[in-house]
Amino acid sequence: MDIKYMKSAIELSKKGKGYTNPNPLVGAVIVKEDKIIGEGFHELYGGPHAEVNAFANAKEDIQGATMYVTLEPCSHFGKTPPCANNIVEKGISKVVIGMRDPNPLVAGKGIEILRNNGIEVKVGILEDEIKKVNEIFIKYITENKPFCILKTAMTLDGKIASSTGDSKWITNEVSRHYVHQIRHRVSAIMVGIGTVLSDDPQLTTRLDDGGVDPIRVIVDTNGRIPLDAKVLNIKSKAKTIIATTEKIDKEKMKAIKEKGAEVIITPLKNERVDLDNLMFQLGKMKIDSVLLEGGSTLNYSALEQGIVDKVLSFIAPKIIGGKDAKTPVGGKGREKIEEAFILKNMTIARFSEDIIIEGYLGKEGG
Amino acid sequence: MDIKYMKSAIELSKKGKGYTNPNPLVGAVIVKEDKIIGEGFHELYGGPHAEVNAFANAKEDIQGATMYVTLEPCSHFGKTPPCANNIVEKGISKVVIGMRDPNPLVAGKGIEILRNNGIEVKVGILEDEIKKVNEIFIKYITENKPFCILKTAMTLDGKIASSTGDSKWITNEVSRHYVHQIRHRVSAIMVGIGTVLSDDPQLTTRLDDGGVDPIRVIVDTNGRIPLDAKVLNIKSKAKTIIATTEKIDKEKMKAIKEKGAEVIITPLKNERVDLDNLMFQLGKMKIDSVLLEGGSTLNYSALEQGIVDKVLSFIAPKIIGGKDAKTPVGGKGREKIEEAFILKNMTIARFSEDIIIEGYLGKEGG
Repeated sequence: MDIKYMKSAIELSKKGKGYTNPNPLVGAVIVKEDKIIGEGFHELYGGPHAEVNAFANAKEDIQGATMYVTLEPCSHFGKTPPCANNIVEKGISKVVIGMRDPNPLVAGKGIEILRNNGIEVKVGILEDEIKKVNEIFIKYITENKPFCILKTAMTLDGKIASSTGDSKWITNEVSRHYVHQIRHRVSAIMVGIGTVLSDDPQLTTRLDDGGVDPIRVIVDTNGRIPLDAKVLNIKSKAKTIIATTEKIDKEKMKAIKEKGAEVIITPLKNERVDLDNLMFQLGKMKIDSVLLEGGSTLNYSALEQGIVDKVLSFIAPKIIGGKDAKTPVGGKGREKIEEAFILKNMTIARFSEDIIIEGYLGKEGG
Repeated sequence: MDIKYMKSAIELSKKGKGYTNPNPLVGAVIVKEDKIIGEGFHELYGGPHAEVNAFANAKEDIQGATMYVTLEPCSHFGKTPPCANNIVEKGISKVVIGMRDPNPLVAGKGIEILRNNGIEVKVGILEDEIKKVNEIFIKYITENKPFCILKTAMTLDGKIASSTGDSKWITNEVSRHYVHQIRHRVSAIMVGIGTVLSDDPQLTTRLDDGGVDPIRVIVDTNGRIPLDAKVLNIKSKAKTIIATTEKIDKEKMKAIKEKGAEVIITPLKNERVDLDNLMFQLGKMKIDSVLLEGGSTLNYSALEQGIVDKVLSFIAPKIIGGKDAKTPVGGKGREKIEEAFILKNMTIARFSEDIIIEGYLGKEGG
């Protein structure tokens, strides 16, 4: 039964996608006499935790009930009082926890409070699934840098555009819709100045039921962005950040700021924006995740500098050909196949005729 | 029950893979009182047909039995007497046929003989599966040209080699073994002169239990092949064919022939070998199938000239990068994404961490 209720808690937790960053996705159900009598999830950053919502939602007396919660209840006074103490006070007699808090500073402390108060605690149910649901939070809380997803879309012969630069549309509508769901999920979206100059994209989330726009990050070493670029002029609740270097013209920087955008200066790395430093600065701004929809040059730099955690590769059932057509990852490239970046834990799915491959970068490789 | 026995017949038919070209793969089982009492398949080109082998193999009296056969029994005197008449003589009372003979000249004639002799005939069981098993034969018998399979192997960022040309190994051992199974299955393998000059491959079938070498076809417009190339010097039961044009030096042609290779001259098409004409000439030589393991230039020409029937794309879980690294299909390329070659009926499978995608070229597209 543990698995069944934990699955319910996981499904609940996913409802918070896009709204809780940089907090984790957490779901909780309260069970009594083999019946769910209360459920809740972390709905919004700064709002009540999943446990609190489950209590508020409970329809019956919760004395002696069991709580299933995907993540270890918190033990600290943050924006809300500690959930562990709350659980004790409410008279819950058993707590089943999906996974321990991945934050090394607090891991185990919530469990300790529960156990010290005579509550039976079981830890580690569907942990792999919960880790995947919270892969963003886990990276962010342990490394203080955003979880970076490299998204590419190519033909079956490896092209992201035709030799003339045409790229509308390589993937189908289902795939493109999925990308907007991810834009909603993440805190930020990142492209290179080349993409802005050639496509002038909006980089917003376009879903039928709205969705949250990601913060737009433009990697622009020399400050070449045109002041009439859409990302500097669109109406969006999310801000635009220009990531640049000392090479930017000071007047240009001032003009960008007057447009309402923020400017981040990084040190130079190979004469370009230092992406690892950029991730560090974005992490400080509470940006827990970045969707990298770069061109091939930026994508290679991101891989080389080790900032990519996950790759999401869409493959369309099309062949376009062209020796000069661009591929998803360009740059200098690794010289030997045995030096290639290796993807692990790959999964494959179909979106109608499109194929989507997900994989993770092994830290020892790349 | 029809499906069960037809499945057995299909499985039997596959045992002939690589040995029956340019004949079809055919399997037959004889059933009496819900028991298989005889089975056979077409084992070797020029050898007995599946029906004959099933009769020879029958352990009991076949009077009044039902025969399940994947393809319509033949009605003509070829290398063996007509199977339809044979079935009548043996006293079979019912014949279940997977699919009609795809050869438009003889389709339905075998069925007619059976029905005219009072045998109950049922046609069309697991037809799609049988069509797939015999996709090579169907193309060859209806168009007199070989079924062409374009095989590519690339990284997840669309490269067939690193920017320095390294390509060992992109795919894993399981994938490479599968390629040798296909080399065994097809009549011929085709590469461009560029591949010979850079890799000097053997193009043989290397399977633990032997396997049949495909005929080697080298597309070499100007006759640049070195006389010490492996394909002109290896020991193999299969011959090497140099497909060239009037541009070849006559002395060179003579020297190639002295090496034991054949030379095919095609008209010029865009200053290169006319691939469609080459397919026509190969078809005349009873070559029913060609595995195209070309470089990116030849692959694009093959697609442009419409000779490709099927694409087999291996994708390795690696990213190599490199703006100058080669991709599976090069050449000029189509200018617009909407003009891309479209793949249909795609299927995906995993070979350990490698991914293999199969698809067919829609005739109306590309």
